[in-house]
Amino acid sequence: MNKSVKYTAGAIINSYAIVFFSQNKVLGVLLLLVSFLNPIAGATGLGCVLLSIALVSIMGYDKESIRIGFYSFNPLLLGIGFGTFYAVNAAFFAWIIIACIIATMLSVTLAVSLSKKGLPLLSLPFVITFWLLLLAVNSIYHMGLEQRHSAVLNEINNLGEGSAYIPPGILSFIQLPNYAALFFRALSAVLFQNSVLSGMVISIGLLIHSRINFSLLVLAFIVACLFNHYTNTYADGISYYHLGSNLVMAAAAIGSFFLIPSARSYFWALLSIPVSFLLINGLSKIFGVYDLPVLSLPFCVVTLLFLSFFRRRINAGKLQLTPLQHYSPERNLYQYLNGNERLAPLSYFNFHLPFMGEWTVSQGYDGDITHKAEWGKALDFVIKDEELQTYQYPGTRMEHFYCFNKPVLACGDGVIEEVVDHVEDNAIGEVNTIENWGNSIVIKHLNGLYSKVSHLKKNSAKVKPGDAVKQGDVLGLCGNSGRSPEPHLHFQVQTTPYIGSKTLAYPFAYYIDQNN
Amino acid sequence: MNKSVKYTAGAIINSYAIVFFSQNKVLGVLLLLVSFLNPIAGATGLGCVLLSIALVSIMGYDKESIRIGFYSFNPLLLGIGFGTFYAVNAAFFAWIIIACIIATMLSVTLAVSLSKKGLPLLSLPFVITFWLLLLAVNSIYHMGLEQRHSAVLNEINNLGEGSAYIPPGILSFIQLPNYAALFFRALSAVLFQNSVLSGMVISIGLLIHSRINFSLLVLAFIVACLFNHYTNTYADGISYYHLGSNLVMAAAAIGSFFLIPSARSYFWALLSIPVSFLLINGLSKIFGVYDLPVLSLPFCVVTLLFLSFFRRRINAGKLQLTPLQHYSPERNLYQYLNGNERLAPLSYFNFHLPFMGEWTVSQGYDGDITHKAEWGKALDFVIKDEELQTYQYPGTRMEHFYCFNKPVLACGDGVIEEVVDHVEDNAIGEVNTIENWGNSIVIKHLNGLYSKVSHLKKNSAKVKPGDAVKQGDVLGLCGNSGRSPEPHLHFQVQTTPYIGSKTLAYPFAYYIDQNN
Amino acid sequence: MNKSVKYTAGAIINSYAIVFFSQNKVLGVLLLLVSFLNPIAGATGLGCVLLSIALVSIMGYDKESIRIGFYSFNPLLLGIGFGTFYAVNAAFFAWIIIACIIATMLSVTLAVSLSKKGLPLLSLPFVITFWLLLLAVNSIYHMGLEQRHSAVLNEINNLGEGSAYIPPGILSFIQLPNYAALFFRALSAVLFQNSVLSGMVISIGLLIHSRINFSLLVLAFIVACLFNHYTNTYADGISYYHLGSNLVMAAAAIGSFFLIPSARSYFWALLSIPVSFLLINGLSKIFGVYDLPVLSLPFCVVTLLFLSFFRRRINAGKLQLTPLQHYSPERNLYQYLNGNERLAPLSYFNFHLPFMGEWTVSQGYDGDITHKAEWGKALDFVIKDEELQTYQYPGTRMEHFYCFNKPVLACGDGVIEEVVDHVEDNAIGEVNTIENWGNSIVIKHLNGLYSKVSHLKKNSAKVKPGDAVKQGDVLGLCGNSGRSPEPHLHFQVQTTPYIGSKTLAYPFAYYIDQNN
Repeated sequence: MNKSVKYTAGAIINSYAIVFFSQNKVLGVLLLLVSFLNPIAGATGLGCVLLSIALVSIMGYDKESIRIGFYSFNPLLLGIGFGTFYAVNAAFFAWIIIACIIATMLSVTLAVSLSKKGLPLLSLPFVITFWLLLLAVNSIYHMGLEQRHSAVLNEINNLGEGSAYIPPGILSFIQLPNYAALFFRALSAVLFQNSVLSGMVISIGLLIHSRINFSLLVLAFIVACLFNHYTNTYADGISYYHLGSNLVMAAAAIGSFFLIPSARSYFWALLSIPVSFLLINGLSKIFGVYDLPVLSLPFCVVTLLFLSFFRRRINAGKLQLTPLQHYSPERNLYQYLNGNERLAPLSYFNFHLPFMGEWTVSQGYDGDITHKAEWGKALDFVIKDEELQTYQYPGTRMEHFYCFNKPVLACGDGVIEEVVDHVEDNAIGEVNTIENWGNSIVIKHLNGLYSKVSHLKKNSAKVKPGDAVKQGDVLGLCGNSGRSPEPHLHFQVQTTPYIGSKTLAYPFAYYIDQNN
Repeated sequence: MNKSVKYTAGAIINSYAIVFFSQNKVLGVLLLLVSFLNPIAGATGLGCVLLSIALVSIMGYDKESIRIGFYSFNPLLLGIGFGTFYAVNAAFFAWIIIACIIATMLSVTLAVSLSKKGLPLLSLPFVITFWLLLLAVNSIYHMGLEQRHSAVLNEINNLGEGSAYIPPGILSFIQLPNYAALFFRALSAVLFQNSVLSGMVISIGLLIHSRINFSLLVLAFIVACLFNHYTNTYADGISYYHLGSNLVMAAAAIGSFFLIPSARSYFWALLSIPVSFLLINGLSKIFGVYDLPVLSLPFCVVTLLFLSFFRRRINAGKLQLTPLQHYSPERNLYQYLNGNERLAPLSYFNFHLPFMGEWTVSQGYDGDITHKAEWGKALDFVIKDEELQTYQYPGTRMEHFYCFNKPVLACGDGVIEEVVDHVEDNAIGEVNTIENWGNSIVIKHLNGLYSKVSHLKKNSAKVKPGDAVKQGDVLGLCGNSGRSPEPHLHFQVQTTPYIGSKTLAYPFAYYIDQNN
Repeated sequence: MNKSVKYTAGAIINSYAIVFFSQNKVLGVLLLLVSFLNPIAGATGLGCVLLSIALVSIMGYDKESIRIGFYSFNPLLLGIGFGTFYAVNAAFFAWIIIACIIATMLSVTLAVSLSKKGLPLLSLPFVITFWLLLLAVNSIYHMGLEQRHSAVLNEINNLGEGSAYIPPGILSFIQLPNYAALFFRALSAVLFQNSVLSGMVISIGLLIHSRINFSLLVLAFIVACLFNHYTNTYADGISYYHLGSNLVMAAAAIGSFFLIPSARSYFWALLSIPVSFLLINGLSKIFGVYDLPVLSLPFCVVTLLFLSFFRRRINAGKLQLTPLQHYSPERNLYQYLNGNERLAPLSYFNFHLPFMGEWTVSQGYDGDITHKAEWGKALDFVIKDEELQTYQYPGTRMEHFYCFNKPVLACGDGVIEEVVDHVEDNAIGEVNTIENWGNSIVIKHLNGLYSKVSHLKKNSAKVKPGDAVKQGDVLGLCGNSGRSPEPHLHFQVQTTPYIGSKTLAYPFAYYIDQNN
């Protein structure tokens, strides 16, 4: 029970933090609190998060994605937007529940489609669902909803009312220079607010989360204001909504999250700003026909365009897409630099078996129930006795199995990329289908060449991410965690650093034949 | 000739029945007859069916898909709609032929794209093509078409004229309660009519086709009316066009066709109703800008959204997508329950070879012309003599081949999923590329684990769908049907129940080595 | 330097020629010259070509695609269009640079997505980017751009001004019949001009490029005019812009470029004309809402629809899609006829090893760094001595390697499909990652069955495309070109004629085992 509450609380907080590409709990809590400065919007947002988490959990979706808030941040944005724009009545509850279900379904569906192309979900499900609601409300039919007064609504509809630089009432005591106030209001616009205070609180959270990210937000803000100053595109100043939700957000996403931070990533981040200008203007013309605001569509389009473009390159060169997302620009950068430095001297690669003594392949390439399709080039190892049994009678406890507690070795030199060490070992015959791979360690050997061992014993890991390892170093102990009905060692070679990555066939057969 | 006439007649009738997700011939004939209550619309619809069947046949598309009306039901809807809305003149013929060709091309193209994602085609080609026609007619250019008076046209354009609850003239003697009349008119709206009589005839056909489907149509109708009663979304009552073509159709598709019928499937079917309300209203606002009716787009969108969402789940749980479509909710349900009950005791699975004695692999995994790509993990078996010949001199007749007429066995316990037994055996050296697999039998061994034998002798099947079989039971006799120039046995393991399914590599090599 | 200048000049010229589906240098130069008849438009177009070539080169995209102008012809069209419609000022430069970057990014991104479905890019990136610019200019925001007077702008906006049949001033001395003048003006409209002279020059280039293509352009022009004469769709005559950019272009693309020219391909080309009429009219209604011209979208849609439809067929029959694009209808046709005639007598196929004596497999199926994924079923051969060395001490020069300069043989009878023979051999230990495959020869053995040898010695090819070869004929000499750190022979069997094609596993193991 306690564990489940903790899991759910984590998923809720992460649904807020991930709006700013983070998994920082402090930032998440601050965003949750800030959202309640508009109590109805805050409550509707939280309600949508809870409903969407409940829905995907009941339907049995991937627990890890639920935990990081991946399916629930679009419903969150939808709830906050809906609560900001409409008054509470019976129809309010009916339609937000329906819309929240649609946004959750779209999140699941689009996430899979986009991830097949190596692209992120962003706020597309929110944008589409909110449009659908706004269209229905503006249609000739009776939806029963009443619009609330909202500065943000005017702003994103380009009615201009919200763009005077006067912070709302309760904050008038803060005498800030116009541009600083505009920056904070732009940040708050992501949560459909127009508040210097909210922007300040969010800024504190962002500084705790990542200095790189925050510095890029500020830099993008300055460049956007300068670009507007020289082109005079928006004569009354840039809308704070577009500044926060589109211009600055896209630059930060490109420059510090989806790319490894570098001078080159900053260049492309800043280049995204005029592209966003063009998209905001062009798309506003299209959606104005339907009386729709463009919301954060320009951010989605510019980010997807840039990422698609980078992804098609044959050689990454010096502009590196983040290979494994750590949800922190600093950590992404550290992992990348660390890996590069240590791996530089290696030019070719020989794998050795990840254990000592004689083991047997219980499941070979393409050979059975779990090693299917794209996960087909993996090997499962066990130790067998002369009667070809893997355990001593009666085989009812982990300790009866020969391979249990045996050391698992690094199959080659490299740098530790990822360590999972907290998963409980299963009782014999049971499997953990939620944390499929159990305790796992991924080693980076070369750019594009990784190996992974899985189903290790809980708390047995001897290494941590960033450690350099030599071939033969002990990584941990063989265990029975994850989708493992009895102790065994799962080994695979892969081209990406993800746990759950597709496998790569690698010439390993020589060793295996010897062992049989 | 006779066979070809029968095939074409079947394809025509099925083009009508499949509009209601059926292959029931009685329903198909009733729908054809009902369509002629508007003679011009009926004739145009039939003409489009014939033209599209001719086009895909000449171009060499998949015969089975043509037979079930899969490429021709969208042209049918287009033809009926066009004949209902426009008067006959020279331009009428010119543009409907062009439009019918476009709808057929779109059916082929979209069917492949969507089926790659495991999604159905629905009425998207009809919607897109009809929009294109309506747009061209409403453009500044001269298309030469004259609009006919049509209650349905007003209705789907939301002009409201058709929504008074008065059945048309010839039916005024039937004094039905308003809601019953509305239900029948809603059904008739699928064929662009507004007729109680048509709806009654269609209802009879649907009752013959499937009681489950009909009960869900009625239930969805009631829930939609109640939802409107409480939300008052449509003050004048729900449009009978949207009731029939969108609200009730989507609920029936989700609850009884694409899902195995159950309490859960009914829950989601009814949940689709408010989602359809939202889509009808929102999309009407968009397409109103172009003076376009939304047609059955809301039905398509809600069905695709729900199916995509269900399909992304890791575990199906108790809400099961229909694995092999039998075009009948009752039969889908029976096959599913039958399979589950019989297969429940099995927990792991060993395959045996599907024959007795010594056979030889003539074509192994990934090994030749026909076992390519996704169909690569299949095995072809023949019997060879000491000179490695597969036949006794001269080898010109099937009877000369050693494997011909030899029994084919179940490779393991399971339930028969599918039997094809009507395909003629080929003369030696000839192949039947239309019915590629020839006579085939698919066995379900476990959820997600099927085996198939193909090229069996005509009328040799000893089993029928639903039969339980034990490993070693005789399924039929080795023959020479389908893409088979000489008698041989094709065997494959697969994860889906379809004939023509991709293959699964399965550890079978042990037996094969023994035999060589 | 000289080589690099030649490469860049070629890429620039090809960016022009590929607009008309050609790689003919004369046509390319003529188009470049013609574009400068409107000096600003010409210069802007050339500038966009240079910027986009620079961008994709710096980002490390595929050199071969850059060389044929594949990524830069959409920016070219964008630049010409922009220079035609807008006056030069500071904003002009700012926005065309941004737009050119977007068009280049879209070219890369869409090219990959479409080619996965076997579909071409066409002018979609130009259409989308130009729309975005036009929308932004027409929005409420200040883009700082001033519109120039342009007959083409009126024409494509259906304002009709351009459609009077009077050639512009400088050409009035040419007294041409109306229809002939219309034809030439239609051709010039592809470059956003309205000039009989330009159309004449383009016609000369097209006649040099391909008589088949030109004849189809004329035929399509006549049929389109006749169709309009009888249907009277455009009472004032067909817009010369739509004639050139949509109607005639789509017919030529379908009938002579994407299909092997034949009576059947002409039939479908002409059938595309009424489909294009319908698309022009329908899409004009949609885009009129946003004050946008449809540009060449109808051409893109009709071409993609027809190609998708043809591609889904099970058997190609007599209507053949061009398997390997030679950018010339004549050469496509010749290769196809030649291959068919010579290959007709073959009914099955046995491969032999592509060399003499004993070689060793250094890299087998799915076996190492470069033979990955879809390129996994290839074999690398070297010659080894008794110490298993591939070279004589010290192994620092190509000549030290045993396999270097050894003859490479045809593995079976067939027709030479493609020869690359100009790539320099690498110094030992270096690799050429730009021309990955080095010097290569592709043989067509059967429809859908090709073999390829790669990394041959420069200028060693003994055959040219179209040659018939017998099994055992010498093709060239083993070398060290391409991605090859030391001399070796790469061999693969494939189903398509492309260099860089995916591999096909073929039963070859017998020979390999013997050699080990």
